[in-house]
Amino acid sequence: MAFDWITLTTDYGLADGFVAACRGVIARTAPKAQVVDVSHAVPPQDVRRGASVLAQAVPYMPPSVHLAVVDPGVGTSRRGLVVVAQDGVLVGPDNGLLLPAAAALGGVEGAYELVAEEYRLSTVSHTFHGRDIFAPAAAHLTLGVEPADFGPEIDPSTLVTLPDPKVTIASQKLTSEVLSVDHFGNIQLAATVRDIIATGLLLPGASVRVRVGMHAVEATIGRTFDDVEPGEALVFVDSAGHVAIAVNQGFASSLLLVSQRNAIAEIER
Amino acid sequence: MAFDWITLTTDYGLADGFVAACRGVIARTAPKAQVVDVSHAVPPQDVRRGASVLAQAVPYMPPSVHLAVVDPGVGTSRRGLVVVAQDGVLVGPDNGLLLPAAAALGGVEGAYELVAEEYRLSTVSHTFHGRDIFAPAAAHLTLGVEPADFGPEIDPSTLVTLPDPKVTIASQKLTSEVLSVDHFGNIQLAATVRDIIATGLLLPGASVRVRVGMHAVEATIGRTFDDVEPGEALVFVDSAGHVAIAVNQGFASSLLLVSQRNAIAEIER
Amino acid sequence: MAFDWITLTTDYGLADGFVAACRGVIARTAPKAQVVDVSHAVPPQDVRRGASVLAQAVPYMPPSVHLAVVDPGVGTSRRGLVVVAQDGVLVGPDNGLLLPAAAALGGVEGAYELVAEEYRLSTVSHTFHGRDIFAPAAAHLTLGVEPADFGPEIDPSTLVTLPDPKVTIASQKLTSEVLSVDHFGNIQLAATVRDIIATGLLLPGASVRVRVGMHAVEATIGRTFDDVEPGEALVFVDSAGHVAIAVNQGFASSLLLVSQRNAIAEIER
Repeated sequence: MAFDWITLTTDYGLADGFVAACRGVIARTAPKAQVVDVSHAVPPQDVRRGASVLAQAVPYMPPSVHLAVVDPGVGTSRRGLVVVAQDGVLVGPDNGLLLPAAAALGGVEGAYELVAEEYRLSTVSHTFHGRDIFAPAAAHLTLGVEPADFGPEIDPSTLVTLPDPKVTIASQKLTSEVLSVDHFGNIQLAATVRDIIATGLLLPGASVRVRVGMHAVEATIGRTFDDVEPGEALVFVDSAGHVAIAVNQGFASSLLLVSQRNAIAEIER
Repeated sequence: MAFDWITLTTDYGLADGFVAACRGVIARTAPKAQVVDVSHAVPPQDVRRGASVLAQAVPYMPPSVHLAVVDPGVGTSRRGLVVVAQDGVLVGPDNGLLLPAAAALGGVEGAYELVAEEYRLSTVSHTFHGRDIFAPAAAHLTLGVEPADFGPEIDPSTLVTLPDPKVTIASQKLTSEVLSVDHFGNIQLAATVRDIIATGLLLPGASVRVRVGMHAVEATIGRTFDDVEPGEALVFVDSAGHVAIAVNQGFASSLLLVSQRNAIAEIER
Repeated sequence: MAFDWITLTTDYGLADGFVAACRGVIARTAPKAQVVDVSHAVPPQDVRRGASVLAQAVPYMPPSVHLAVVDPGVGTSRRGLVVVAQDGVLVGPDNGLLLPAAAALGGVEGAYELVAEEYRLSTVSHTFHGRDIFAPAAAHLTLGVEPADFGPEIDPSTLVTLPDPKVTIASQKLTSEVLSVDHFGNIQLAATVRDIIATGLLLPGASVRVRVGMHAVEATIGRTFDDVEPGEALVFVDSAGHVAIAVNQGFASSLLLVSQRNAIAEIER
C-alpha cells in the first residue's frame, strides 16, 4: 500500500508557518508526495468542525493519506492514530476528528496506535505533534510503510467518537443542529437529504418557516439560490447532501443571526 | 492542445474545503496537472473583482487552463464556458468573469458551451458547479480533450460582458472608477498608464489633488512609495499598468476612506 | 548547486494574485521546481515578523531556495540579495529579513547583490520586485545558476541587520521582548530555552508571575497545555525552542491583552 497524495486539514491557520513546517517534513521524507490542503482555517481546537470539513472533502480525493490535526490534547496521553479505511488512510489524534471521514471513505478497516519512534522526528516537542509525529507518519505511509508498522492494533470500538448531532424528524417538521456556517453565510444543518425526505417537506416551491434560536423567516424549498427572489430565504439540499438554508445574493447567517454551529434549527410547514 | 498547468480563481474562501474538493476532482482525472491558486478570496459573488484579479495574474502564467468560478447564477440557465484565447484556455460561467483575462491572453479565438456529460462528475449538484462541472472540464482540457468536444461553438459576440469601468480623460484631469483596494491599502484605478499620459499629469514630482468621494488629499506623482515622505500620498503607475494611489508606510484606503471599488476618483493639478 | 524546492514568505496576502504572479514567473522558468508557502500573512511591511516566521520554518525544509519579500523599500536604492547559507540559499531585500533564517540554516557563507539583468523579467516595475526580480532569481537558482552569477559579492558584515530583541536574565527572573502572538493566542517571547534555564525558573509545576505591560497573571511552568486547568496560564518552551505563554483551552493574548510584538514580558517567582 503506497500513496501519491497527502491531504492536510488543521486548525493551524496560514500565518505562522506551522503548515509549512509540516510540508517541509513531508518533503524531506517523501519528496514525490503531492499535497492538497483541505483547510487550515478550522476554528482553533474545534474538533467537530474539522471532522465535518474533512469528511465532506475526502470523497472527492484520489486515494490519499489524510493527515488531520485539530488537537487540544496534544502532549497528553491521548493516542495518535493511523486509521485504515476502505478508500484511504487517516492520520491524526484520537479525539473523533478522523472517524466521520473514515465513514465517508467506506468505513474503518483497522486502527493502529502511532508509537513507533523510527517514524517520528528525532526530537519530539510537547506541543506540535503535527510536525513531529503526524507529518512524518503520513510521509512514511505514502512510501509504503504499513499501518501496522506504526504501533499496536487498536480495537476500533475503543476509538474516541464525537457525539452525534441532534436531528429530529416529524411529519412536516425537521429539527436539526447547525453543522456549520460557510464562507457564503449558508447555514448547513446536520440533517441530510434523507432526513428532510422523511419529513415530507421536500416539495420544490413549498413555503416553510425556518427558526434558528429566537429568529425566524419564511423560506421556500428550492434547488438553487436563484429559485427565490434576491434577499429571500431558500431551504435546499446542498452539494454535500445536507439540508441547508441560504439567502439569494445574501447571507443567511446574517438574516438569522447564526454565528455558531450547535444552534438548533427548525423547519416546518 | 494539452497543458501542464491549471490556475484556480474563486470566491470560495479557504475555510470550507470547497477548493480542496475541486483540487481532488482535478487530481483524480489529471494527476500530473500542476495547480497554481490565483485567489480564493474574491469577495463572494463579486464577478468584477474576480475578473480583475484573474486578468492581472494570467500574463505571468505558463500556458495554462484557467479555471475561474465566481458564479452567483449557479444552477440557473446561465451557460458554462470553455473560452480559447491565444495564450491559454479559460473555463467558468458565462457572466463576464473570463473575458478580461481572455483579452490579457491575446483575445478570444473561440468559445464553446460546456454541456458534454462525459466530462462532468456522474452526479451534478445544483450549487457547486466548480466541483462538478468546471473542475472536471479543466482537468480534461489538460489531458488534450479539445475545447470543441465540450459542446457547441458559441458566437463570441453573445458572451456576457461586464460594463466598462468609467474613465474620463481631460487636460490635467483624470476621472476613473476605483477597480480595487489591495492588501496594502493601495487604491487601484481602472485608468491605465495610457490614460494618465493622455491627461498630461504624469510628471514625476508634480503635485496633484486626489479626491475620492467626499475625501481629498494632496499627492505627488512618483514611481515608488519612498518618493514621498512617510504618511504622504503618491499617485503612481502600479505593477499591473494601472494608475494607483498609495501612502508611503500607510494605507491610502484609510486616508481616503475608500472601502469599495466603484467609487470615483479624480486626480487633477 | 541546484535545488528541487522553493519556499515563499511574503506580506502579500492571498487575495490580490500577487503570490500567484510570482508562482507563474517561477513556473515559466523552472517548471519542475516544487513550491512550499511558508506564510503570506506576514503583517504588511513587518520585516521582523517575516524574519521570525521564516527562521522558524527553514530548519524543517529540504534543501531549498528561500524566497522572502517583505520590502517597504521596494524601488529605492536598498539592495537585492542572494545569501548563501550552509543548508540553503535565500533571496530577498537587504533589510534584515533573511539573516535570522540564514543563521538557522548554519550561517552566512556568502552574499551577492542581485543586479544581473539577464535573470530578471524584461520589464521591471518599481513596486513589485517579488515578481520581477526576486522570483526570477529564485527560479534560476533552482536550475543551477550560481549565486555569484547574479552580481558582485557583498561583504556580509555590511548586510542590514535587525536590532536584537531585548532579553534580560537574572536569578529567578526573565525579562524578554514579545516576538509574536500566534494563531492560538500563544505569546512567543524572544527568550529561548537556554535563557529560561539560566534564570533557574524552568521547574515543572512551579508557580510564576507573568506580567506583560500593565497586565499580570499567575502561571505554572509546564510542558504542554493540559498541564494546567482550562483557563489557566502556562509558561513553557514552545516547538521552536522559545519561551512562550499559553492558556489551556484559551487565548493568552486575550488574557494579557497583548496585541503586538515588542511588548515586554516579565516572568518571575
